[in-house]
Amino acid sequence: MLRQLENRFSINVAGLKRSVIRELLKLTQKPEIISFAGGLPSPETFPVEEVAEIAHEVVLQDGAWSLQYGPTEGDPRLKEEIIRWMARDGIHVTADNILITTASQQGLDIVGRVFINRHNPVMTARPSYVGAISAFRSYMARFVGIDLDDEGIRVDLVRDKLAEMRLAAELPRFIYVVPDFQNPAGVTMSLERRKALLALAREYQVLIVEDTPYRSLRYTGKTLPSLYEMDQGEGYVISLRTFSKILFPGLRLGYIMAKTEFIDKFVIAKQGMDLCTPPFTQAIAYEYLHRDLLEDHIKSNIAIYAKKREIMMQALEDTMPKHPDLCWTRPEGGLFLWLKMPEKVDTEIMFKEAVEENVAYVVGTGFYPDGGGKHAMRLNFSYPSESDIVEGVKRLARVIERNLGR
Amino acid sequence: MLRQLENRFSINVAGLKRSVIRELLKLTQKPEIISFAGGLPSPETFPVEEVAEIAHEVVLQDGAWSLQYGPTEGDPRLKEEIIRWMARDGIHVTADNILITTASQQGLDIVGRVFINRHNPVMTARPSYVGAISAFRSYMARFVGIDLDDEGIRVDLVRDKLAEMRLAAELPRFIYVVPDFQNPAGVTMSLERRKALLALAREYQVLIVEDTPYRSLRYTGKTLPSLYEMDQGEGYVISLRTFSKILFPGLRLGYIMAKTEFIDKFVIAKQGMDLCTPPFTQAIAYEYLHRDLLEDHIKSNIAIYAKKREIMMQALEDTMPKHPDLCWTRPEGGLFLWLKMPEKVDTEIMFKEAVEENVAYVVGTGFYPDGGGKHAMRLNFSYPSESDIVEGVKRLARVIERNLGR
Repeated sequence: MLRQLENRFSINVAGLKRSVIRELLKLTQKPEIISFAGGLPSPETFPVEEVAEIAHEVVLQDGAWSLQYGPTEGDPRLKEEIIRWMARDGIHVTADNILITTASQQGLDIVGRVFINRHNPVMTARPSYVGAISAFRSYMARFVGIDLDDEGIRVDLVRDKLAEMRLAAELPRFIYVVPDFQNPAGVTMSLERRKALLALAREYQVLIVEDTPYRSLRYTGKTLPSLYEMDQGEGYVISLRTFSKILFPGLRLGYIMAKTEFIDKFVIAKQGMDLCTPPFTQAIAYEYLHRDLLEDHIKSNIAIYAKKREIMMQALEDTMPKHPDLCWTRPEGGLFLWLKMPEKVDTEIMFKEAVEENVAYVVGTGFYPDGGGKHAMRLNFSYPSESDIVEGVKRLARVIERNLGR
Repeated sequence: MLRQLENRFSINVAGLKRSVIRELLKLTQKPEIISFAGGLPSPETFPVEEVAEIAHEVVLQDGAWSLQYGPTEGDPRLKEEIIRWMARDGIHVTADNILITTASQQGLDIVGRVFINRHNPVMTARPSYVGAISAFRSYMARFVGIDLDDEGIRVDLVRDKLAEMRLAAELPRFIYVVPDFQNPAGVTMSLERRKALLALAREYQVLIVEDTPYRSLRYTGKTLPSLYEMDQGEGYVISLRTFSKILFPGLRLGYIMAKTEFIDKFVIAKQGMDLCTPPFTQAIAYEYLHRDLLEDHIKSNIAIYAKKREIMMQALEDTMPKHPDLCWTRPEGGLFLWLKMPEKVDTEIMFKEAVEENVAYVVGTGFYPDGGGKHAMRLNFSYPSESDIVEGVKRLARVIERNLGR
């Protein structure tokens, strides 16, 4: 018999655990649970009829292309549409600045492979997107966590840390940020912070990886320029985008924008990963963009999500116990908010109780690359129905109330 | 300005070059070229009408599933169909033995990540599939190449090498083989060799990674049991399969079969790579299999490819100059054959001449992980039309004749 299974695994994965979020999600499959865990878009937003028709058409009319292998760089027609789409976001790029990816999780994996050597430092916010943490961890990154507040990552702390790291002659390979409606915290980086972060990137010659999947989903406030736009092609910023949250996730389609020299290396890395993103799904996205359907679709998404966000904000206001150390963020967009409890409450322990009460959230610890987050949770408002949001928050308030009283 | 671009890349990619094959393919885009390079299935085999109809249906009737995120492990319905399909190949597995991948290139990447530490030895045939080489190279594998002949990898040499490596206390992390109609050589591993290789795996406690994308495409001779079947669940064999060559590549759909303990780690690795394979493409494959369309479709593929193979064999016989050191393999299936020239001929230098003569092939060097292959080339017979095969071989014969005479 095959022996010594454990010794067979590489150090890349020896320390990797299944994503806490995805594993907890499994616990919350029973139908009576109202789940604020997960980060799923609402199926009611999916443009089912248009996509059904487009899928039919791109196979029937262009099967020799859409069912075949495609270029690693991505479908050139889709790139043209992305260039047109990005121009509306103030970004002017050429096809050589774009690599189509199998959604932005692959973008994170590519960035990890291309920039991270074992034990290299990578700077991220605390908390940070769990999928980025797991992608970078699989390249054995050493995480340098920087706290964030309501205006995003604390750039003053970034400055101090960079100065310290330069003295130690080991600057981070890059700074990873989710500037718009951050996952998990729901906060948006202010314009001043964006400027300051970019100034630091220039001063210290450090790259910024901007991950902005929810950027188009703004419900209140004014859109701020992306870091990629502000960089003006100097090359400090690598920007990850995706169609998962604005069109639908089942395509698994995203793209990386960066300086051409970086894209060249990304293409090589991607060749070894999956040769190419499915031409079939790219053809569908191309056609959807080409027909100018995306803007109206996003508007209808925003209408749905803005209302859900409003309902959740109101429900929290109405039902949560009053306690000086119980607070939550007020996201201007995206899918998530972040709820902080008094430090004595451990949301991982409380989770079992919540599931018994038929409500679920994501415990905060998974979002902290270097420890912490025990007294926080992420709540999603895009997936549950409006009535479930109200009922779910009531259930959660009961669980929290009991825990505050202990 | 951003400085020191070269210093920014990780050692993972510093040594990686763009795939020779994919780059050469770009040179051969002009329409007058007859290309035996590339490994594309023929678009005439694509089941366009069925897929158009199925794609329409899986979106319209099941959009909330097929357009949403899915489980990392894969669509459970597709797994059930794979289990049913594999039973016809003599393989009996459960859903826990299967991970759906974004085609088998991702399977190779996963295997690399999960098993290879920097500088670990990996044993492969010489020549070997270039995509496997580049996937394993990105984990900084050290390649231990073993020659192959008409019966596949030389297991006698594998035995000697394993004995030598055991003395040095460093056995390979796994032995990578393409037992059926190998890419690039077109040869099939004999039953005796399969038995002997598996016996060595048991004796030395070494894993075998079996990559068998063309297995169902046999045109002559008798099907041999796969290594995965012969292993009978002992766990020595990890098998990579794909729908790319038997259905169509544009789905980018494959699967890994392995011992459950391995699948568990593969799932964790895949979470960081792309979260999940598109549920949309999985739903299409599920429906296609569920309607029992695949078997007849493969039969029609075989009819097309068997004829093309026959035509190429005959054309080579009829047109190639006679020379004791000019020879080629006679594949019983798959998409490729391997042509060897006298050692004085460098197929990389000859390539330019071939392109001038409007014919293309893949130079052998890309398939040798540790040097060699300069006097060999891979020829594909699945993609060009029947008449192009005849004409292309004539052109190639002219180029070769000139080079032999020098």
